[in-house]
Amino acid sequence: MIFNSKITQAACFFSMLFFSINTFAQQPADFVNPLIGTSNYGATFPGPIAPRGMASISPFNVAGRQNSLEKDSQWLSNPYVNENTFLTGFSQVNLSGVGCPDLGVILLMPTTGAVETNHLKYGSTYSKELAKTAYYSVNIDKYKVKGEFTASKRVGVSRFTFPKGQSNILLNLGLGLTNEEGAMVKVVSSTEIEGMRSVGSFCYNSPEDAYPVYFVAKFSKPANHFGVWKNTPKYEGTEAQWMGYNGKIRMMKNTIKTVVGDSIGTYFTYQFDKEETVEVKIGVSYVSIQNARENLEKETGYKSFDDVYKETFNEWNEELSKILVEGGSYQDKVIFYTALYHTLIHPNTLNDINGEFPQIKRSKIGKTLGTRYTVFSLWDTYRNMHPLTSLVYPKQQSDMIKSMLQMYDENGWLPKWELNSTETFTMVGDPASIVIADACLKGIQDFDIYKAYHAMLKGADQIEENPLRPGLKEYLQKGYLSTNYHGSVSTTEEYNASDYAIALMAKALGEKEDYKRFYKRSLSYQKLYDKDLKLLRPRTADGKWYEPFDPNAGANFQENVGFIEGNAWQYAFMVSHDIKGLIKLMGGDKVFSDQLQKIFDIKQFDMANEPDIAYPYLFNYVKGEEWKSQEMVKKLVREYFRNEPKGLPGNDDTGTMSAWLVYSMMGIYPISPGDPIYTVTTPMFDKVTIKLDSRYYNKENVVIERAMNSDGKIKEIQLNGKTLNSFFINHDDFVNGTTLKVIQE
Amino acid sequence: MIFNSKITQAACFFSMLFFSINTFAQQPADFVNPLIGTSNYGATFPGPIAPRGMASISPFNVAGRQNSLEKDSQWLSNPYVNENTFLTGFSQVNLSGVGCPDLGVILLMPTTGAVETNHLKYGSTYSKELAKTAYYSVNIDKYKVKGEFTASKRVGVSRFTFPKGQSNILLNLGLGLTNEEGAMVKVVSSTEIEGMRSVGSFCYNSPEDAYPVYFVAKFSKPANHFGVWKNTPKYEGTEAQWMGYNGKIRMMKNTIKTVVGDSIGTYFTYQFDKEETVEVKIGVSYVSIQNARENLEKETGYKSFDDVYKETFNEWNEELSKILVEGGSYQDKVIFYTALYHTLIHPNTLNDINGEFPQIKRSKIGKTLGTRYTVFSLWDTYRNMHPLTSLVYPKQQSDMIKSMLQMYDENGWLPKWELNSTETFTMVGDPASIVIADACLKGIQDFDIYKAYHAMLKGADQIEENPLRPGLKEYLQKGYLSTNYHGSVSTTEEYNASDYAIALMAKALGEKEDYKRFYKRSLSYQKLYDKDLKLLRPRTADGKWYEPFDPNAGANFQENVGFIEGNAWQYAFMVSHDIKGLIKLMGGDKVFSDQLQKIFDIKQFDMANEPDIAYPYLFNYVKGEEWKSQEMVKKLVREYFRNEPKGLPGNDDTGTMSAWLVYSMMGIYPISPGDPIYTVTTPMFDKVTIKLDSRYYNKENVVIERAMNSDGKIKEIQLNGKTLNSFFINHDDFVNGTTLKVIQE
Repeated sequence: MIFNSKITQAACFFSMLFFSINTFAQQPADFVNPLIGTSNYGATFPGPIAPRGMASISPFNVAGRQNSLEKDSQWLSNPYVNENTFLTGFSQVNLSGVGCPDLGVILLMPTTGAVETNHLKYGSTYSKELAKTAYYSVNIDKYKVKGEFTASKRVGVSRFTFPKGQSNILLNLGLGLTNEEGAMVKVVSSTEIEGMRSVGSFCYNSPEDAYPVYFVAKFSKPANHFGVWKNTPKYEGTEAQWMGYNGKIRMMKNTIKTVVGDSIGTYFTYQFDKEETVEVKIGVSYVSIQNARENLEKETGYKSFDDVYKETFNEWNEELSKILVEGGSYQDKVIFYTALYHTLIHPNTLNDINGEFPQIKRSKIGKTLGTRYTVFSLWDTYRNMHPLTSLVYPKQQSDMIKSMLQMYDENGWLPKWELNSTETFTMVGDPASIVIADACLKGIQDFDIYKAYHAMLKGADQIEENPLRPGLKEYLQKGYLSTNYHGSVSTTEEYNASDYAIALMAKALGEKEDYKRFYKRSLSYQKLYDKDLKLLRPRTADGKWYEPFDPNAGANFQENVGFIEGNAWQYAFMVSHDIKGLIKLMGGDKVFSDQLQKIFDIKQFDMANEPDIAYPYLFNYVKGEEWKSQEMVKKLVREYFRNEPKGLPGNDDTGTMSAWLVYSMMGIYPISPGDPIYTVTTPMFDKVTIKLDSRYYNKENVVIERAMNSDGKIKEIQLNGKTLNSFFINHDDFVNGTTLKVIQE
Repeated sequence: MIFNSKITQAACFFSMLFFSINTFAQQPADFVNPLIGTSNYGATFPGPIAPRGMASISPFNVAGRQNSLEKDSQWLSNPYVNENTFLTGFSQVNLSGVGCPDLGVILLMPTTGAVETNHLKYGSTYSKELAKTAYYSVNIDKYKVKGEFTASKRVGVSRFTFPKGQSNILLNLGLGLTNEEGAMVKVVSSTEIEGMRSVGSFCYNSPEDAYPVYFVAKFSKPANHFGVWKNTPKYEGTEAQWMGYNGKIRMMKNTIKTVVGDSIGTYFTYQFDKEETVEVKIGVSYVSIQNARENLEKETGYKSFDDVYKETFNEWNEELSKILVEGGSYQDKVIFYTALYHTLIHPNTLNDINGEFPQIKRSKIGKTLGTRYTVFSLWDTYRNMHPLTSLVYPKQQSDMIKSMLQMYDENGWLPKWELNSTETFTMVGDPASIVIADACLKGIQDFDIYKAYHAMLKGADQIEENPLRPGLKEYLQKGYLSTNYHGSVSTTEEYNASDYAIALMAKALGEKEDYKRFYKRSLSYQKLYDKDLKLLRPRTADGKWYEPFDPNAGANFQENVGFIEGNAWQYAFMVSHDIKGLIKLMGGDKVFSDQLQKIFDIKQFDMANEPDIAYPYLFNYVKGEEWKSQEMVKKLVREYFRNEPKGLPGNDDTGTMSAWLVYSMMGIYPISPGDPIYTVTTPMFDKVTIKLDSRYYNKENVVIERAMNSDGKIKEIQLNGKTLNSFFINHDDFVNGTTLKVIQE
């Protein structure tokens, strides 16, 4: 072992290091359990993906009534649900932790015996699932086939071990999670397929922006036979009398013609006289089939399944090792690293290996030398996921901002909820400004800051035809949106939060007038404060309180006047940038603290959605009450985050819930996004070492320590051995310090 | 004019010659009226096509209830019907004179004002149609747009003259004549579109063989705006509640993404401040988009509409000038040259300009140095169209045979009814053998004759799994098919005709045993002769006559036991290879002649379909009765063939009716296909000069003359001044002679 260890240390490639020493000790990537979040609507998927990868593979088990959660029976947003039992394929592009169905297409499925193309008939139960970083395997019961899966950034790699006899690999381009339909396919040869699948209409919106995913599939062994199938709808006109084939499936054998349709697929058939494996590589692209082929060839060319797995595992391990935790239980490490893993899935890579990507609106193909990121669920991620990325992965954050500014160049607007170069305009508010200001004020400034500032101002000030801020005119006139607008209170608060971030940017840039103007704008939520209820309350267009008003209404995503995905309780304190002002409004610390506590007591706190996820930290604003934050955070971590499929409180929201956990377990939280500050609670590890990127930060590491592993309240917080006067620490102080030490009673 | 004439004579290019002198005198191509056959189910189309072209443009006026003959209301096989009034576009690939709907897709349509994509709304009446060789123009009333159309072999060229204001050019990939659906489209730039459209299911058969037509469209002016539209079917599941867009049309503006669907299209929009023209070139290919682009660029690259028109006109004129007629009325020349034109549409070119074509079954792309022909409606064309091609265009006939043998190589079988590399197996019999034998025995022998012979034998002898000759086992055992088989009498007769052709080939090749065997087989129809009825009559499997039997049943394509598209009268004499045997069977010349005459008298002769189209010539087999053939042929020509849309007796059957007319007007007819003989009636011109191809024939020309223009009976026929003893002449004698002179009383 010593001998091996020396060899390892001599290895030239850093990435090799991790994989090799992995055989000796558990590395961060070994703690990842991709099954976490695959139940309880967490909407993560258990299959392999590379960090911020374009391709990913998920077992697809949401079709067919055999499954309790059937995709078309409800608003279901994930290709895999842990409780379901009926598997109908392995999808090659997937979204993680989102709240709307999309992607989950290009379904690969191994079968044996006669070719059956109806997923309700070829589907199977499955067993022996194994999900780990960059690897997923499962046995497909009906066919006694083992499936193993890994992925590089733009290529999914599947390995099937077939028994003796006739084996088939289906590529189903009909079935999918997305509500879009339509595909094109061409078998190029007995080892290659090319095609595209339409996806889009995310959140049942903007069907005109539905877009293609192109792919090329290469098989390690030539098929003995292949073919294309097509289902056509039943025609009912006069001519039906002559169509003997009406409504029947069409099997097109050994054809190399292009076939299009809403329900098509291919089959590759083998005759094996002993157990055999076939590897299938599927390269994807949002630009063209040609690019999908280039992605496949350049990323995985002659590499075996095992080669690809090792490389992706190492890449993950490198990323996850940016935060090293010591102490804490095995389970704590699992939930921590799995959460960090989940924050590294979206935003993900959109550009092909040659740099090409579809610009917003798909009127042009762009080209980048860096990374063009996509999947910006900004209403979620501005709160903590982007602040985490700024701290731990600042280069990625910089490229994300550059991607956002490219979108601005292409589209005239910063993104709101961008998905594969479609702007879905899902959710409310103008969160891009907060993300950019937050990063910029933390020192990530290698982008065109003035362009960014201009873009922020455009979104904040342009009254007519402003897709980011509907109701802006009324907001500017009255300080709030009236009930004429959907989610008027929520939207007002979101605009306030963005305006605060813009104010901070203005201040930093010396734009004093803008600073004053936007700072003032950021406080206008106060006009919605109902003194009697001590809550924010919608006003109608004539300025009166909206009646009848039930602060409890709006649970479980029910429509609720004034609020988006929540109720008055869940939005009452969503003004992190002005908690002191809110305390004053409410009549002082005690009233504030009681009202905040009440929300938890009457069970109106919702851990599963964003508006109130900072609430547990707000006790830190009340001197002497900070222990409540410490207790509440710990309680919530234990209650909602576990090493099991149900181990997320709900939708992961492209890593937002996971980022909450990462921060909460480290003992710091970016309490007021845009404002470069953290608030402190008790770390859940003895020691947390964050490796800082030397391109953005001076220090190599920053360490968070807890003095002991106890439930005791924090009695002192030290930075580099010097006592802090508050439970807040500036980002600059933090990253330029050495150790943040939390000492409990 | 003299000056011009000299310049013309000095021109280097032969093809230029025709076009230029066209301004001085009427050339053969000037006599073509493409409107002939566009009514009365002739199924020809009036738009431009090059000789044996892959691309063609037809006005498309068979959609919408405004049209009396609506495509989906009946079995309608043409994209244009002269009586219809509501135009919805111009289709870019079309079949001429077939009996089943297919192609008629890629619909270009100019409109003005706001973009409307529903053909029922954007459709228009039209006026001022002008149809001539290689050119069609029409005014589209609703938009005051003039459309002009021409085509090269693989490229359709459209020129639209728009008024001032917003103009649009729609490319509708949903609407079409074919019953297939499914298309893919991508706007490449503001001057280019690429895509494909699925077609096939010809005669409501073999949907699994449906295949793509690829295309590239280039516009002479960049669009100000462009977009793609898509209609999607209305979804009716649980999720419909969230789909605000359900069932609505999607307009996708300025997008360059690939879109697929059953009902999609593109629009190119212009803002003109004065009258402007836009030219659109659409290259097609059955191999790939890339090939479609290459076809477009190499055939029409920088050529203008007028350039393309001139070239194609000249090409036609050259082809049509292979037969020069003198005397006869203007109308006679019009119907004659239009018929010759119609025989030069199918079979048509399948290969791209680079030689590539899809092989039969589309499992490979083939490549040819010559021409790969397609659209072999052999049940029709073996009777006269191929014999005409052998005589006048032997190089084309040779390439057609080579194409048929390629199909045999690719597929294992000679074609039966081949359409764009799909074998539709429409109709009955095994006609390819007759076509090949006929050409071979006429001296076209530059193909692999032994391969051809082997292929014929395979089709004639392989009892199991023989797609060409169902029922072959019974046929060989009993000499006929029983009523267990569809069209048992017709099929028996077709097999007999093929077997006769094979016998002739065997004889020529010195295969004496085969000769005897097949000659004997060719006479087995006699077992179906019912002496009492003097007709062929179906037998049941136990050998008894089929009962009840009505010789008159089966009119108008009604199902009729024993017969295909006809009745007992129309098949009674369809044994041209053994008329002498039939005469004997019937009991001599008089009975035969009376029975033949009776068919005409009781109106059981059907000029509109193939089985009996040789009947009028059969009086030539009875000494002294030949005048009846002369009179009958002339009567039929005058009754059914006219210079008007209704000027064909019915389906042109890919030129078969037209070939009948060409031969009939020349005064000779290939009475027994396979057998290289012609029978003679009175020519309808004073002089017919057939230019012979020196690669196949010794003489430069052969001339047919009539002594006078009178209704008198033929009293003498001379070959090179020497009296012929009969009304029959061998092909060799004919083509090696100089003048066939018909002298009337």
